[in-house]
Amino acid sequence: MRWIRFSTAGRTAYGSLNGDTVTEISGEPWGTHAPTGQQHRLADVTLEVPVIPRTFYCAGINYAKHIREMAAKRGVEPVFPEKADIGYRANNALVAHGQNVVIPADATEKVNYEGELVVVIGRQVKHLSESDAMSCVFGYTIGNDVSERTWQRGDRTFWRGKNADTFKPMGPWIETDVDLDAMETIVRVNGAESIRFKTNDMIFSIPHYISQMTKYLTLYPGDVIWMGTDGTSPDLTDGDVVDVELTGIGVLRNPFVKARG
Amino acid sequence: MRWIRFSTAGRTAYGSLNGDTVTEISGEPWGTHAPTGQQHRLADVTLEVPVIPRTFYCAGINYAKHIREMAAKRGVEPVFPEKADIGYRANNALVAHGQNVVIPADATEKVNYEGELVVVIGRQVKHLSESDAMSCVFGYTIGNDVSERTWQRGDRTFWRGKNADTFKPMGPWIETDVDLDAMETIVRVNGAESIRFKTNDMIFSIPHYISQMTKYLTLYPGDVIWMGTDGTSPDLTDGDVVDVELTGIGVLRNPFVKARG
Repeated sequence: MRWIRFSTAGRTAYGSLNGDTVTEISGEPWGTHAPTGQQHRLADVTLEVPVIPRTFYCAGINYAKHIREMAAKRGVEPVFPEKADIGYRANNALVAHGQNVVIPADATEKVNYEGELVVVIGRQVKHLSESDAMSCVFGYTIGNDVSERTWQRGDRTFWRGKNADTFKPMGPWIETDVDLDAMETIVRVNGAESIRFKTNDMIFSIPHYISQMTKYLTLYPGDVIWMGTDGTSPDLTDGDVVDVELTGIGVLRNPFVKARG
Repeated sequence: MRWIRFSTAGRTAYGSLNGDTVTEISGEPWGTHAPTGQQHRLADVTLEVPVIPRTFYCAGINYAKHIREMAAKRGVEPVFPEKADIGYRANNALVAHGQNVVIPADATEKVNYEGELVVVIGRQVKHLSESDAMSCVFGYTIGNDVSERTWQRGDRTFWRGKNADTFKPMGPWIETDVDLDAMETIVRVNGAESIRFKTNDMIFSIPHYISQMTKYLTLYPGDVIWMGTDGTSPDLTDGDVVDVELTGIGVLRNPFVKARG
């Protein structure tokens, strides 16, 4: 089942999506909700970020090839994570499917995509075992962890290298029914395939991350966990359009534009 | 003026606080709001975290003595930040005044307080100059950036070293009228003064941080910026009670308890 968050006539709501028909609900898909009786055509509404999470989690590095290729680019030895230490991203940076990623005027040319599977949490949980971990997952969406590599390496934190406004496209919707083991992540730049990898070939699995995280922290409905990316990205410039496809979910498309100084 | 967020009779609301009288409002203090006509005695309501921020910012290191003393503890040379790179904390960790800080059963003995001034943002802003920066500040509250130093140093991120559940006490209320240059931060452990410093003796000032941050990111109403701490903390154990006082704001008090394994 697909759930979208959308705006129309000055209000924002959730709705289920069947073909091109949006059936609006009051409330949130993972909570108490009811149909409002209103239906819309998908083309008539504005897609919003599927959720503004209470906490925005991100695995960061979680695929072997990404670590090897990033290390090679920098001329250093690859360092693999020893355990599932979760990281964070910032809500200010979220933008929806179709919205521009605005590259700041003083950014270097080292602007990259990272196509990622996003786990959306559906209930409040703590102390989940690995075998129970998937029971808190409501569904999945797509994220593009846009990164300015010079700032990412040179700053003390990821504040502008990863979290400048518009650097975190997420969407277009939440899909509740997926086959993770069959899923592929495919990124296209201006229509040309740039990378393709098996989405679930992670160093630390989704249930492992959730079980480790919930030893120390409570997950809440609407929290998101971005699971990391594989491979590397060409440098992106003004006018590029990046599609992140996750088979079984859909395509997250965002144009990249450079801000004028 | 003091604003509290509180619960009573199954609902959570904001109210202004005069002496012991809470005058309830609908809406948020920094937005459209109106009195509901209800008043409460402070003793009859439960204090809640003053705000669940959209993004939870934290300066991390922003006082000279803290950097020198932390370096001395570790036997390394102090490293001062070269610029105002903002960091992050996680909403799952927030607890209100009076609530327990629960030290996880497998934590080491290196659990420390960090008493901090918290800036609460009142309006949506970007590209503020340093001279205009304070115009977006709604008020101030108090934070205790509780840290498990072994995890803070050994993990790849601050996820459990800084952001385990209950590690971020914030409150008790938001004070809109303060004299920053006169303000002192005083931390007491079990009633005995442990540290005292001039709150505004920061390496990078509040307006400098805000102007740098808003070059790249939008601040939203309810966002918080924790400004860092000075000095160091003794190791805290089961049964300790920590008061963080900021003169002109109030006292944030939280008992520390160790979880049974």
